Amino acid sequence: MDKMSIGQHISQQFNAELEDIRTRVLNMGGLVEQQLADALTAVMDENTELAELVINGDLKVNAMEVNIDEECSRILARRQPAASDLRLIVAVIKTITDLERCGDQAERVASIAMRLTGGRENRNHYEDLVHLGNHVRQLLHDALDAFARMDPEAAVQVARDDINVDKEYDALTRQLITYMMEDPRTITRSLDVLWAARALERIGDHARNICEYVVYLVRGKDVRHVSLDQMEEEARKR
Amino acid sequence: MDKMSIGQHISQQFNAELEDIRTRVLNMGGLVEQQLADALTAVMDENTELAELVINGDLKVNAMEVNIDEECSRILARRQPAASDLRLIVAVIKTITDLERCGDQAERVASIAMRLTGGRENRNHYEDLVHLGNHVRQLLHDALDAFARMDPEAAVQVARDDINVDKEYDALTRQLITYMMEDPRTITRSLDVLWAARALERIGDHARNICEYVVYLVRGKDVRHVSLDQMEEEARKR
Repeated sequence: MDKMSIGQHISQQFNAELEDIRTRVLNMGGLVEQQLADALTAVMDENTELAELVINGDLKVNAMEVNIDEECSRILARRQPAASDLRLIVAVIKTITDLERCGDQAERVASIAMRLTGGRENRNHYEDLVHLGNHVRQLLHDALDAFARMDPEAAVQVARDDINVDKEYDALTRQLITYMMEDPRTITRSLDVLWAARALERIGDHARNICEYVVYLVRGKDVRHVSLDQMEEEARKR
Repeated sequence: MDKMSIGQHISQQFNAELEDIRTRVLNMGGLVEQQLADALTAVMDENTELAELVINGDLKVNAMEVNIDEECSRILARRQPAASDLRLIVAVIKTITDLERCGDQAERVASIAMRLTGGRENRNHYEDLVHLGNHVRQLLHDALDAFARMDPEAAVQVARDDINVDKEYDALTRQLITYMMEDPRTITRSLDVLWAARALERIGDHARNICEYVVYLVRGKDVRHVSLDQMEEEARKR
């Protein structure tokens, strides 16, 4: 399915509705990306005001999820879509659930940023954390880009990159554990960094889920529980 | 909507399909409950064989998710359901995503059980962990029961109980942090207990999500991002 096939409906109105739903998902994704970027800046700059903005901003993410979900139900009921149109709606319902949970994780990072403010001892781990965060931001951005372009092969590349995020997360975890062992007074703060890292790693998983829906949507194959190589094979089939 | 309304379709076949999908969700839920129970037993008894069974069993959970999803798409395409039938299908699509993620968390607890085997130092925290786990099991069971009986008021009670799970999780986290600070040699193992506790707490969140879908399905109101009191108000409306 490409943008061409969206243009083949008899009803112009239906086309417009499907386009609109895609645009809304991308807007929601854009907001979540911004929330994540702001949460990372809040950590790095110890900016509690920005952290509060992120926490309050999650309400907007939630509202977008509810609105898009309602619109999907309306389209299912009125238009009774089939084939690739139906897959688009199902993929959207799933994608926005993952986006909403990315938003929750960004909010979590912002809450941790508020707690971390004022300490100086762990700054080098902050940088590692923000490095991981920027990697995850790129991953989420690329996943949304694959969704926007309905490009299953790009989606597979993003899913592959999530492995690197996991590796970076594991390395940071090991460093933090060593650090805690060497100086137990840092345990509370190091755990906060660890929780933030885990939240970021979870966003990577959600981005990967979104990539799986892109393959499903375009190729009609459910690739959620298969290997990356199998996912790639399905993505290449035409 | 109650079971009566499912019986009002002109097509007996359609009724049978909707009943079948509900049964499949409950079977999937039953399997996830069992996976969780086995993961907790594996922790408590340091039973690595059982832990491995749980890890392998997650494939079954995943397969059930994929099958139910396919069946939902088939029903959407062929039957073009409206009103409460459509809400049932949408609620099922969302519920099985949460159930699958509960399964992932049970698998995570089982993996941690394998790592924890052989150490004796933290046994008292094991008991706290299993206590939390049993609370979460009950929560998941009650959420599935509310789904089975399509009982929105019961669903609200379950959602309220998730607050107690969160409190129990917070208390255990605090205990573990104190313990690590007192004896840094326990950090690695204590963190494993902490990760397992977090996995259990996440299952509680998923159970709460399922409760929200029950209210949506029966009352037609999206209560995902509202307060518990508002959720209760919606659940009571007829």
